[in-house]
Amino acid sequence: MFKWKWLSLAVLGTLAAHSVLASGGASANEGHGAGITLLWIAVILIAAKIASLVERVGQPAVLGELVMGVILGNLVLLGVNLFEPIKQNEIIAFLSELGVVILLFQIGLESNIQQMRKVGLSAFLVAVVGVVAPFVLGTYLVGPWLMPGLSSAAYLFLGASLTATSVGITARVFKDLGKLKTPEAQIVLGAAVFDDVLGLIILAVVTAIATVGAVSVGAISWIIAKAFLFLIGAILVGTISAPWLGRAFSRIQTGVGMKFTLALAFCLVFAYVSGLIGLAPIVGAFAAGLVLDPVHFRYFKAPKMVEEIMETAEGQSEEVKKKLHTMVEHHAERHIEELIEPVAYLLVPIFFILTGMNVALETLFNPKIIGIALAITLVAVIGKVITGLVAGPVKKAIVGVGMIPRGEVGLIFASIGKGLGVLSDDLFSVIVVMVILTTLLAPPVLARQLKK
Amino acid sequence: MFKWKWLSLAVLGTLAAHSVLASGGASANEGHGAGITLLWIAVILIAAKIASLVERVGQPAVLGELVMGVILGNLVLLGVNLFEPIKQNEIIAFLSELGVVILLFQIGLESNIQQMRKVGLSAFLVAVVGVVAPFVLGTYLVGPWLMPGLSSAAYLFLGASLTATSVGITARVFKDLGKLKTPEAQIVLGAAVFDDVLGLIILAVVTAIATVGAVSVGAISWIIAKAFLFLIGAILVGTISAPWLGRAFSRIQTGVGMKFTLALAFCLVFAYVSGLIGLAPIVGAFAAGLVLDPVHFRYFKAPKMVEEIMETAEGQSEEVKKKLHTMVEHHAERHIEELIEPVAYLLVPIFFILTGMNVALETLFNPKIIGIALAITLVAVIGKVITGLVAGPVKKAIVGVGMIPRGEVGLIFASIGKGLGVLSDDLFSVIVVMVILTTLLAPPVLARQLKK
Repeated sequence: MFKWKWLSLAVLGTLAAHSVLASGGASANEGHGAGITLLWIAVILIAAKIASLVERVGQPAVLGELVMGVILGNLVLLGVNLFEPIKQNEIIAFLSELGVVILLFQIGLESNIQQMRKVGLSAFLVAVVGVVAPFVLGTYLVGPWLMPGLSSAAYLFLGASLTATSVGITARVFKDLGKLKTPEAQIVLGAAVFDDVLGLIILAVVTAIATVGAVSVGAISWIIAKAFLFLIGAILVGTISAPWLGRAFSRIQTGVGMKFTLALAFCLVFAYVSGLIGLAPIVGAFAAGLVLDPVHFRYFKAPKMVEEIMETAEGQSEEVKKKLHTMVEHHAERHIEELIEPVAYLLVPIFFILTGMNVALETLFNPKIIGIALAITLVAVIGKVITGLVAGPVKKAIVGVGMIPRGEVGLIFASIGKGLGVLSDDLFSVIVVMVILTTLLAPPVLARQLKK
Repeated sequence: MFKWKWLSLAVLGTLAAHSVLASGGASANEGHGAGITLLWIAVILIAAKIASLVERVGQPAVLGELVMGVILGNLVLLGVNLFEPIKQNEIIAFLSELGVVILLFQIGLESNIQQMRKVGLSAFLVAVVGVVAPFVLGTYLVGPWLMPGLSSAAYLFLGASLTATSVGITARVFKDLGKLKTPEAQIVLGAAVFDDVLGLIILAVVTAIATVGAVSVGAISWIIAKAFLFLIGAILVGTISAPWLGRAFSRIQTGVGMKFTLALAFCLVFAYVSGLIGLAPIVGAFAAGLVLDPVHFRYFKAPKMVEEIMETAEGQSEEVKKKLHTMVEHHAERHIEELIEPVAYLLVPIFFILTGMNVALETLFNPKIIGIALAITLVAVIGKVITGLVAGPVKKAIVGVGMIPRGEVGLIFASIGKGLGVLSDDLFSVIVVMVILTTLLAPPVLARQLKK
């Protein structure tokens, strides 16, 4: 592992050089806007990989990355403001968003429509309970009780920000532990998608109430219709087109590059369209993954090896020949996912590190805020854990715990509420802390449950 | 190929939807800054892949991508301004820069230090003449003569952009005709690498002159010294550390992700450091590639297949067993390049399409500019063809013609010059036209020479 030391030294040396040369270095990079951002990407990737070593003690890599992000983002409390520019870097912010899109695309690719149909009803029930319960608890009970005297819009935003499960974090845990195909995982993933859709509807409605005052039933129906049409349309397109998409992908002779480009462009266009009709881009990316999921294509991963196997087969006994031929046939089937993975290596860690970095630990320095945050977190946990009760004949605890983590969507709600002037700084901090705690809490508990 | 139609329709439909919904779509994307950029990436990737079909008629893909970029970027002349926002998109600009960094990393990985040593002297002489001749001709003769009154920095950039032979295009022609092992091919390939290095040094000097203004002999010597020290240092580090880097890479058990991250972080840190000391980030990326070039690592590309081969080997004759084992051993050696390739699929086309898009065709509506472009192209051809004279006892015409094509490096120079405000739109277009013409010209002429 001395390579680690070496690389870390190189990075630290570079960082030191950068901080020393700060003013001079800036001019040297003029005309090369890429300059410092290249370094930040390297720093994030290395930090994420160091953090992912928590896998060796049985924790999901995403937890390590998130905590690493919290550390990097709060070193400023110790007077180290080296990494602060990352938070303001717009390119890093985009790469992080692209990372979630790629992640949801991967998750979509891994999610099987057939299997989702099987868990469909359970997932839907889990999602509805998991949205309604924390929304009602937050908006009408705990909010007014703990923080009396705020506007009803503030309580609405608090409730709304409690609704959306962060499918990325949950999925990573299932994926890291190889449990993505279990019915529990399928229910949670399915529910998290429904739940994103429901959460986005709630956001639209709550925003309308906070800004306009009231919203027509027609407008609400239209938002709901769009979301459902999009997902159902994507699934229909996928089911119908998968066979000939597979044939087309096998027929393309120009190599892996073409297949890669088509798959990725498919994902990006879906993500864009979904953003265009008012849904989050990640909904489209997930749908694109669902559509391409059954698409396999013939592609020999190691063509020279295959050639040599065929040569070796010549002149052997029939039995050996047949064995070798079957082997080659078997391994010629490849999945689009393999093409996308290296891009995910580059982009996905940026999202998790950056999410961690945006956590402002100093919000925890006020005891009263800590108390309220803990109570709200408890509500957030209870509101999701009870969803296990409607999950059907599966391990209810796994479904319940799997639904706990909040993430990007909750944070988006909070920032929109703050932007509208509806949420106070305190309430904003409370929501952020809730997101951190549920996110930090769920992976280890889920991992323990899964290993049982 | 009906898949193409289908996808194109999807994209065009989306674009139409976007232009219609333009105002509404903007508000729908609030809070998701990624929105439209996702679409642009998809559009660029698909356009690049369509363009790369020129390979089927024997032209290099880069040429197709460049021409496609010119078309997309100039549709506005036909009243179609759909793609104009791409040119102003800062994230696309960054991804394009990152693309060049990755490309030069790949070129570095492909460049073999050992082989460069063998054809050393001839290749070095060819490279020096091939850099000095067009540089001097462009900077001090044809530039000032054809376009009097420009800044000396503009002439310097023009001359610099004429220096670097595009090794990829030349190599493809030799390879396609089975002449890669001839001394002529080896000299051209070797020279193209030296010539990259020399070109990068010229770039550093020229950039310094353009930004700081007049530069003293001492300062230029210092830049040259830095560039040499950086590259020689990198090569030394590489030669010394390659064996244990290889072992370290083989020892890492945490999978491909870790190897990928280390290699990429290596490239990014080198690129950043090189930018920091006043060289272009691509110099660092190239050096990182040179350093990692000899690093191979044991990694079974298709582990399940290997497993089954081992199983098949059991109980077979000793001969078959040995054959199968050798096969597996042989294919266990992998190169870092394979890990980086998918990222290049995503990023590199963005650079070429964007470069093409930045060509303002209307500058060529001026017969005078066309004349200048043709004259500069002639200078570019002459400056390389005469290198045959110093190639030693080989077919001089083949070496000379083989050195003609300009490509990515020339384009990079032109973009940097434009970014610094040194190159006018006219001069930028002239350089891009020169690159396109030399690239179009060389392959057929070289093929005729080789078939003689």
